[in-house]
Amino acid sequence: MSVTAAKGFTAAGIAAGIKENGNPDLALVVNNGPRQAAAGVFTSNRVKAAPVLWSEQVLKGGQVSAVVLNSGGANACTGPQGFQDTHATAEKAAEELGTSAGEVAVASTGLIGELLPMDKLLPGVRAAAAALSEHGGEKAAIAIKTTDSVHKTAVVQRAGWSVGGMAKGAGMLAPGLATMLVVLTTDADVDSAALDRALRAATRTTFDRVDSDGCMSTNDTVLLLASGASGETPAHDEFAEAVRELCDDLARQLIGDAEGASKDIRIEVVGAASEDDAVEVGRSIARNNLLKCAIHGEDPNWGRVLSAIGTTSARFEPDQLNVAINDVWVCKNGSVGEDRDLVDMRYREVRVTADLSAGSESAVIWANDLTADYVHENSAYSS
Amino acid sequence: MSVTAAKGFTAAGIAAGIKENGNPDLALVVNNGPRQAAAGVFTSNRVKAAPVLWSEQVLKGGQVSAVVLNSGGANACTGPQGFQDTHATAEKAAEELGTSAGEVAVASTGLIGELLPMDKLLPGVRAAAAALSEHGGEKAAIAIKTTDSVHKTAVVQRAGWSVGGMAKGAGMLAPGLATMLVVLTTDADVDSAALDRALRAATRTTFDRVDSDGCMSTNDTVLLLASGASGETPAHDEFAEAVRELCDDLARQLIGDAEGASKDIRIEVVGAASEDDAVEVGRSIARNNLLKCAIHGEDPNWGRVLSAIGTTSARFEPDQLNVAINDVWVCKNGSVGEDRDLVDMRYREVRVTADLSAGSESAVIWANDLTADYVHENSAYSS
Repeated sequence: MSVTAAKGFTAAGIAAGIKENGNPDLALVVNNGPRQAAAGVFTSNRVKAAPVLWSEQVLKGGQVSAVVLNSGGANACTGPQGFQDTHATAEKAAEELGTSAGEVAVASTGLIGELLPMDKLLPGVRAAAAALSEHGGEKAAIAIKTTDSVHKTAVVQRAGWSVGGMAKGAGMLAPGLATMLVVLTTDADVDSAALDRALRAATRTTFDRVDSDGCMSTNDTVLLLASGASGETPAHDEFAEAVRELCDDLARQLIGDAEGASKDIRIEVVGAASEDDAVEVGRSIARNNLLKCAIHGEDPNWGRVLSAIGTTSARFEPDQLNVAINDVWVCKNGSVGEDRDLVDMRYREVRVTADLSAGSESAVIWANDLTADYVHENSAYSS
Repeated sequence: MSVTAAKGFTAAGIAAGIKENGNPDLALVVNNGPRQAAAGVFTSNRVKAAPVLWSEQVLKGGQVSAVVLNSGGANACTGPQGFQDTHATAEKAAEELGTSAGEVAVASTGLIGELLPMDKLLPGVRAAAAALSEHGGEKAAIAIKTTDSVHKTAVVQRAGWSVGGMAKGAGMLAPGLATMLVVLTTDADVDSAALDRALRAATRTTFDRVDSDGCMSTNDTVLLLASGASGETPAHDEFAEAVRELCDDLARQLIGDAEGASKDIRIEVVGAASEDDAVEVGRSIARNNLLKCAIHGEDPNWGRVLSAIGTTSARFEPDQLNVAINDVWVCKNGSVGEDRDLVDMRYREVRVTADLSAGSESAVIWANDLTADYVHENSAYSS
């Protein structure tokens, strides 16, 4: 169902020839209204891809009638020519759809530092416009895949309205947004300010707390488009919760398909003096390569959790730290706790709980293990 | 030559039975004077091992007559019993050597979160004291190895005096000191304040700029002991330079033997507005798993360098960044530069140069690639 689950949207996904292997590589999502409100959040990496720079400008107007997304090339670190190519892409879509380029967002994903083959991309935009359909959501989701092994979609249904979306991302997943492109759509009748509020609240505790490999992309983009086609205007809290639920679902799918991963690690930091402390400690644990290797080896090596906590500025006393792995408190008061042999790590999901004993705040960060497959996939990616 | 290259020192390395495989696991270094001045720097990890807490206290006196080092167990996260065990180790050495426990530094390395087998360690101290020799430096260096494939020693000779040392460390190598134990000795006649000044200056640009895997240990210890046995008191700058040279040599040996590594990566950041900026950018590049994988695959993937730079707070403009890999400027002005096929990455040493075009400061960080062997070694370490 994806981005076409909500009324008022059409989409398409086609093979434009950007990817040399002939796989689908170009998606188009169109908001047919009556409303064309939109909000977006983008990577906090200071090196931003051309489509991010373009779409940030587009989103300032709060109005998006279409989104063009391509895989097969990130159009990042491509200089003025790269920006012109993004602009030309938006112009082409506007021409095909009878709208203004200033209302066309663009998103790209793939290798950094190479210009896009515009001789293939522009005809692709035309072909995608011709293929637009109310059932095109799945195909659009498939066309934005890079190293993803599966496409990711989700829908949250409410009385009379819905929110749906698609996401891609399997590596370079880290806070400040993952390497991911996400388009969410709703037929609720919500203005762009309310969309922005709901989207920022949702991404802060979902996509922003995914950390597969500590690497922040130049291209991350999450867009939320509202068509108003349901005629329903839900209460803001209800709408925001639906958006959060949708983002949570898609973020979880990203982690579940991370490059080379064999484990999904749910890191919950409790007993923190502040939420910031909890997030800082969670991220430090999430990025500890030695712990990620240990979890890959199904080794409840809690010493590596303590080492990671020790590098943070969070409030805690070393002799009051407690750590559980899959609910077995293997570290109590900063020292040896329950028998580590009690920890069963056979399943894909591994839960690490760190209790800082310094307050009542908490946060959850999702991460992956570090595997030889990750190394293999990323040592061969551009070659 | 190691720690016994300088006059006034004896050392020993023996197998005390701490390691189950029977390899050497206990080293003793003794300063026979006439002077017993010392300085030390320790991990900045807030979770500190018992021997670090102990030795920090010992070093406050500026006087160290002996150092006991064991591999086979880190004695970290072991609570009050762990600290008592370190204390007992120092007491035992003091008894054997006829000195005071308050002048005996202790250092440990190995698995975190397990108590040391004191029934083996204490008789080991006795055996090591009996084996002390002016030629014991090599054996001491061998006894502190954990996953090191080779033992590391170095000597800097000057007119009438020298500085020598040993180091161990192959993983968990990161700033704020690596997982490493280092003992440096000199027969120069230098007081503890001057030793401290020379040691801090030297570690700041050597051991502190090694980053094999971004993981900071609980046990890092670098000690510098002076016997005064040469009767020479060199000018401070000359002495400090000799210590820096020694530290640089040993730090380079640590990177060259990092767990699973196939490449040593020299990251030089130039054109920075400040040295802090240069170090922050260098560390960010050094810790980027995707780049580390790319270098393992001999892929000059400069986009990953730019992604890493983009996550820092250093002063730069994205369209003024330049990156060279092995002296080929593959990225110019934030975009595509010289042909990446010109980059030859067949050799173990890979040089990444990042020019921020924002000033004239620079820094060098040494790192390693990320390999399947690293994953294998660290997923099986404690199991």
